[in-house]
Amino acid sequence: MKTRPFQHTIALDDARAIIERTVQPIARTERLPLGEARDRVLAGTIVATADVPPFSRAAMDGYALRADDTAGAGRATPRTLHCVEEIFTGQMPQRTLAAGECAAVATGAPMPAGADAVVMVEETTADGTRISVLANVQPRQNVGAQGADIRQGQTVLAEGACLNASRIGAVAALGMTSIDVYARPRVAILSTGNEIVEPGQPLAPGQLYDINRYTLAAVVEEHGGIAVPQRTAADTIDELSHAVEACLGEDVLVFSGGSSVGERDLILDVLAAKGEVLFHGIAVKPGKPTAFGCIGTTLVFGMPGYPTSCLSNAYILLAPALRQLARLPARLSRTVPMRLGARVASVAGRHQFYSVRIVDGTAMPAFKASGDITSMSQADGYIEIPADTEVVEAGSMVDVTMF
Amino acid sequence: MKTRPFQHTIALDDARAIIERTVQPIARTERLPLGEARDRVLAGTIVATADVPPFSRAAMDGYALRADDTAGAGRATPRTLHCVEEIFTGQMPQRTLAAGECAAVATGAPMPAGADAVVMVEETTADGTRISVLANVQPRQNVGAQGADIRQGQTVLAEGACLNASRIGAVAALGMTSIDVYARPRVAILSTGNEIVEPGQPLAPGQLYDINRYTLAAVVEEHGGIAVPQRTAADTIDELSHAVEACLGEDVLVFSGGSSVGERDLILDVLAAKGEVLFHGIAVKPGKPTAFGCIGTTLVFGMPGYPTSCLSNAYILLAPALRQLARLPARLSRTVPMRLGARVASVAGRHQFYSVRIVDGTAMPAFKASGDITSMSQADGYIEIPADTEVVEAGSMVDVTMF
Repeated sequence: MKTRPFQHTIALDDARAIIERTVQPIARTERLPLGEARDRVLAGTIVATADVPPFSRAAMDGYALRADDTAGAGRATPRTLHCVEEIFTGQMPQRTLAAGECAAVATGAPMPAGADAVVMVEETTADGTRISVLANVQPRQNVGAQGADIRQGQTVLAEGACLNASRIGAVAALGMTSIDVYARPRVAILSTGNEIVEPGQPLAPGQLYDINRYTLAAVVEEHGGIAVPQRTAADTIDELSHAVEACLGEDVLVFSGGSSVGERDLILDVLAAKGEVLFHGIAVKPGKPTAFGCIGTTLVFGMPGYPTSCLSNAYILLAPALRQLARLPARLSRTVPMRLGARVASVAGRHQFYSVRIVDGTAMPAFKASGDITSMSQADGYIEIPADTEVVEAGSMVDVTMF
Repeated sequence: MKTRPFQHTIALDDARAIIERTVQPIARTERLPLGEARDRVLAGTIVATADVPPFSRAAMDGYALRADDTAGAGRATPRTLHCVEEIFTGQMPQRTLAAGECAAVATGAPMPAGADAVVMVEETTADGTRISVLANVQPRQNVGAQGADIRQGQTVLAEGACLNASRIGAVAALGMTSIDVYARPRVAILSTGNEIVEPGQPLAPGQLYDINRYTLAAVVEEHGGIAVPQRTAADTIDELSHAVEACLGEDVLVFSGGSSVGERDLILDVLAAKGEVLFHGIAVKPGKPTAFGCIGTTLVFGMPGYPTSCLSNAYILLAPALRQLARLPARLSRTVPMRLGARVASVAGRHQFYSVRIVDGTAMPAFKASGDITSMSQADGYIEIPADTEVVEAGSMVDVTMF
């Protein structure tokens, strides 16, 4: 068996830098119904076509009035006004208020002409249409002025805004029903290896079910991409070459398996022949035999076949790259400082990704072996141990990134 | 206009406690393809039906051998073995190793009978089939034993597990293609008010576009629910009554508008007539006129009509309730400690939700008025000011919950 050991590995930070300068944020856009735009990225500036609210309105239940009429009003010195109208929401006022007049208003009802303030109902007493005002109100008090929220011509949302609930609400306020957003990057997922079988099929001796297709798809969808799983490819140049070709219409190809140093790790040859290998081999543990490159405009990640190595590198390399490609903001830190429950030894010179389980507020090591998916499925998150650290003692504070 | 001022409000913590003890975690389940199970909650324990891996395998590229044969081996004292076979992944070994023999193995390839360890290729030299082993290896070294990851009969995932990437991977490892999960709660969203118009329609004088339907739907989907928007209902007992009836097949009804104190706030009467009002009025700002109750098995949230009041209460009340209903874990804190950039005054006796914008690492107040959606759409998160705090000074440390 001819094996090709790594000539050298690069530091994780260098790998991250190469990926970051290679990724071009996606340019494709699509128009979506507003109700489907959550977590999408706005592909154009939204300028208000009208004032919001489109009319001045009461901000409290009470009485619209002329603030001047309440000068000196107080509990002991009420001012009496004549209520000439009741205005509910959705109704237009019929009257212009004169001095000494007021109109009963519900919260959100349009202000009548002539009125410049609202006194809260709690600061009044009523006897038929004789309203005693028990407080002095200032002009504009308890009034939501026309355009106070959004003024016609104002930029409501800038290009690149990530559409959360309130931003979708701001678009709805303008009466828009659809919106241009950047397309979600399409990510082909290709599991390679003669031993890999799709779940649902029987296993022959020496075969394993495909795990990476599912874990990678979950990470892709979590970080704004569309997972496009491919049929498993066997380890022949022909089959790998065809499988790779079939993925070149996608924005990203993530393959797993075949990026270690065995003679049959042919897919790296396919990548090198069709495109460019930008790195192969990272000083991380697990996940050393990871590659990155591109074929035309398709970014290519080559992940180790071992499920936890594949998944940990998906978290630390693929996810940030996808967010950059999708124009999503960097993931908000889900890092929780916590005390480490047991000593962890790390390999000198390799950045280590270490699964932990949270037990009574302490981070307990959960890592078993890089082939073991249970070590991660039973973990709550992970810590990262820098390449220059060999031991993290029990009781040390560590930052746990939650899954 | 007859108004019905709040007799009293309850504290936010009391409101939260009432909701928490009313919500029953959902019992409905559904079977999903594994690839669609991300972020869903497992509705049954998964027990391994076979060992994973189903055979012992090499954990490194190198040579499978009998560890005894390497006793005393080192760079200066190599041991020479005869390589009798090459074993690739997906292939079954043909030979049983005898003493003095080894087999070339690729990472992941099945171990041949007779072998109990693997020496890394980097610790060997080869001259044809004469392999010099330059290191002493221990039994089981560099071997992934059958069942080491998952043992047949072992509980792989417990009922209630939230399906992240690694947990989906653990299910895939067993060859399963579908999985039973709890159903997502269905949440009817009903905007009420004569003044409310669906986006896409022209606005008559005194009318506004519906914002809450969109913001509530986004929060519902973000927290594991299925948003089921309803047609806007006008402020008549008949129309509201029919609209509410139409929602009683859903797990939750969230209406907005009509829960303040105006004479026409009829929907609370509908709720009280058909079911039970568990509270109405919370000492929060904004969002005081918020109600909660149930009609049969449908939980009912009555939110203020004003968009930011509605949305802030969706964050602090609806989202945790939905997660409890959906059996999702409490949202991981997305809280970032930060210095407040300007003094904020709060109303004594009311828990305040205050939008902030992050500018150069400082939390700047972004709140405009409770009717203004832009104050939230331009904010990055919010701070909460307890009811007993009246002022938070500029420069104070605050916890910003990111949107």
